[in-house]
Amino acid sequence: MLRLSRFLPSTSTSRGVTGLKDALWSGSLTFKHALSTSAANVDENASAKKFASYTVFKGKAALSISPILPLFTKLESGGSRVNRNGSVMLTFFPAVGQRKYDYTKKQLFALSPTEVGSLISLGPAESCEFFHDPSMKSSHEGQVKKSLSITPLGSDNGYFVNITVLNNVQKTNERLSVPVTKAEFAVMRTALSFALPHIMGWDQALSTHPQSAPTSASKPRFERPNPDSEWDR
Amino acid sequence: MLRLSRFLPSTSTSRGVTGLKDALWSGSLTFKHALSTSAANVDENASAKKFASYTVFKGKAALSISPILPLFTKLESGGSRVNRNGSVMLTFFPAVGQRKYDYTKKQLFALSPTEVGSLISLGPAESCEFFHDPSMKSSHEGQVKKSLSITPLGSDNGYFVNITVLNNVQKTNERLSVPVTKAEFAVMRTALSFALPHIMGWDQALSTHPQSAPTSASKPRFERPNPDSEWDR
Amino acid sequence: MLRLSRFLPSTSTSRGVTGLKDALWSGSLTFKHALSTSAANVDENASAKKFASYTVFKGKAALSISPILPLFTKLESGGSRVNRNGSVMLTFFPAVGQRKYDYTKKQLFALSPTEVGSLISLGPAESCEFFHDPSMKSSHEGQVKKSLSITPLGSDNGYFVNITVLNNVQKTNERLSVPVTKAEFAVMRTALSFALPHIMGWDQALSTHPQSAPTSASKPRFERPNPDSEWDR
Amino acid sequence: MLRLSRFLPSTSTSRGVTGLKDALWSGSLTFKHALSTSAANVDENASAKKFASYTVFKGKAALSISPILPLFTKLESGGSRVNRNGSVMLTFFPAVGQRKYDYTKKQLFALSPTEVGSLISLGPAESCEFFHDPSMKSSHEGQVKKSLSITPLGSDNGYFVNITVLNNVQKTNERLSVPVTKAEFAVMRTALSFALPHIMGWDQALSTHPQSAPTSASKPRFERPNPDSEWDR
Repeated sequence: MLRLSRFLPSTSTSRGVTGLKDALWSGSLTFKHALSTSAANVDENASAKKFASYTVFKGKAALSISPILPLFTKLESGGSRVNRNGSVMLTFFPAVGQRKYDYTKKQLFALSPTEVGSLISLGPAESCEFFHDPSMKSSHEGQVKKSLSITPLGSDNGYFVNITVLNNVQKTNERLSVPVTKAEFAVMRTALSFALPHIMGWDQALSTHPQSAPTSASKPRFERPNPDSEWDR
Repeated sequence: MLRLSRFLPSTSTSRGVTGLKDALWSGSLTFKHALSTSAANVDENASAKKFASYTVFKGKAALSISPILPLFTKLESGGSRVNRNGSVMLTFFPAVGQRKYDYTKKQLFALSPTEVGSLISLGPAESCEFFHDPSMKSSHEGQVKKSLSITPLGSDNGYFVNITVLNNVQKTNERLSVPVTKAEFAVMRTALSFALPHIMGWDQALSTHPQSAPTSASKPRFERPNPDSEWDR
Repeated sequence: MLRLSRFLPSTSTSRGVTGLKDALWSGSLTFKHALSTSAANVDENASAKKFASYTVFKGKAALSISPILPLFTKLESGGSRVNRNGSVMLTFFPAVGQRKYDYTKKQLFALSPTEVGSLISLGPAESCEFFHDPSMKSSHEGQVKKSLSITPLGSDNGYFVNITVLNNVQKTNERLSVPVTKAEFAVMRTALSFALPHIMGWDQALSTHPQSAPTSASKPRFERPNPDSEWDR
Repeated sequence: MLRLSRFLPSTSTSRGVTGLKDALWSGSLTFKHALSTSAANVDENASAKKFASYTVFKGKAALSISPILPLFTKLESGGSRVNRNGSVMLTFFPAVGQRKYDYTKKQLFALSPTEVGSLISLGPAESCEFFHDPSMKSSHEGQVKKSLSITPLGSDNGYFVNITVLNNVQKTNERLSVPVTKAEFAVMRTALSFALPHIMGWDQALSTHPQSAPTSASKPRFERPNPDSEWDR
């Protein structure tokens, strides 16, 4: 039987980002300032942008996941297409005391659509690992290597989510590990499954807008070929 | 073979909130007044707010679940982020006669995102239990303790959903229990899975607005760094 | 190995409602007129209403499913709540020749949210049955009885969907049966799972509107109690 | 353990359509021009149309999937209904060198809703096959035959997606085959499940518009019959 307790504050209690105020009571203002500054950096013009995440706070580190939208490019036709897929950003914070986390030492890992697919199809006893090189295809390729691994806790009890950042220049090797319960992983799986079509832009490709609602009412159907057909070559 | 009957009114028949008029024929007006008053309390300014729920009426009690939106806070950048997660509210009403329920004696239990994750990932033979303290971290901590447990009915036939409210000041211990069929639990699981990304604000973080549609069409891509990247440290 | 063929027209070929023109070539105009008349009846004022369905055409009958929106009632507070749940309408047409169906002899069965839950959680070897009485709680109760049963075809190959309408006044007993392949049932399950939160109004309860976007930015959080809390009794 | 690597460019690396610039560096401009021309053909008036896809690049061919919206027809009542279902288009490109693909030799296959249902319900060891004839019911019927088959790679490791185009006039038989990993297939399954209600128009049938929000507030409920009921014959 799974028991989640709110009575006794413990290192394994999970809470949303709204719990940051309590969790980080000693550094709340600093953290908040950092967050809003970070948000301001994203796009100076996107004043209506909204941010949401899901965060689990554990003994040695916290893990926050949040979705990032794809970018569209205008086409000559006036329409637009996805120019860069969105992603789901994983952010790890090391613990620096009981329920205190150091935001300045965060480690980031952006999941691509296929990596999201790997995570949401993970069986209870399966594991997966992804490798990223921030400087891939530049002269700095290989200087920093990141890996994210997800391994089962055993007995269908959830997973360990581990990030390793190896910096060959600074000769550092940082590793953060967060145990995620079955319930927390169910939240992540549901949130990632929801986010996946959105970070690929499919929700926008499948939404209709008043000015562009496809309708064949005004033109008889037999007078126009179907350009979407597989037979139009 | 599962049989759901609409011929014979029985204590195990389930119906939506629209059936309240029939179910509560003796107290319909009072109930409705209470409901609209309650709604008015939520936010005096939110005149466009809409309410929806899913309710099952059983012999000893009824159980209604309904989603509650997250709250966003404006950021200095002009954007906003989730300040408090939404939840899924479970409301229990005790039966006071055949198909009559006492709305004034309701018991509430608000599921957090992680508790929703626990519920939607529950296996047919699994159970879970959550504990809430309304006065957590105040001087009244421990005076009232609520617990919600979900236990299998057996043979993949659904679950018992039980709430216990222990009041150490008033020396009362109320307990309400509602058997939920496999079909009703499938509705709850589907509704909760749908609600989960919304109560965490992910749908809003992933939606685009005309004024903030992200596009790189006007600026050549190589002239701006990607601020959403995991490499931007 | 499952094979779906488009080469040879056969009685087991399934196609969307757009195939009606071919399937009903002998009665196309009549059918279309009936459809638009029917649509006009739904709500004289709802000029923007859109209709969609999923239809399978088989040897002895066709089965079409389509979603119906819930109705909301305005509250004194200015908000609104679900007054009557929506449903998913199943419409059966008997075949009157090869790929010809008689629209005038259709039989209807409206699935409630819980009945939808029963259908989408049906295991490969499970069956379910629902009973409806159109005149329930009126003086005509029991005159007409409808039942819908879904029974497995065997070997995980799909289901038979059967409707029986027993009219005790006219002394008639009509029965229509449609075999649904595993692929077709997957479409129905996906469409019903998508529709379920919508027919209960949860999508509207969870959507935000510009004028009612919940935000606590203008008022400091500690100055207002949380009216959505489970602790507000 | 599944490993996805970004360090070593390999023929089995998968990436979104945004990776085309790298993958097709030798023919980037031509490809882009073809794409925007193609987009312009779709509908001269749909200037707001958005395009999204999911593409996997493999050694012998690439496979891209993208959703296509349904078409609605205006009804006399002022509403509209689906006139032609949308689809999910599969596009295969043959490889013409390391990470180079020939866009001009693409092969198309448009999945109907039922074919999408077949694909998303495919078990780990199951396979399926679809046959299309571009000239079905015309005098050219049988001249060109297309088949799409999806067969398991074995050990729950994903699927082979194969297209065969047999042209009896040109006496050609083209075949392209793309291995899809379990993670990539999870992306496709999630994207197709998301797209399915949309290509059938259910999202539009279930969405409410300000001018047509169904409400019974202004008219007492007992004064109007329920036209959506199954009992309205």
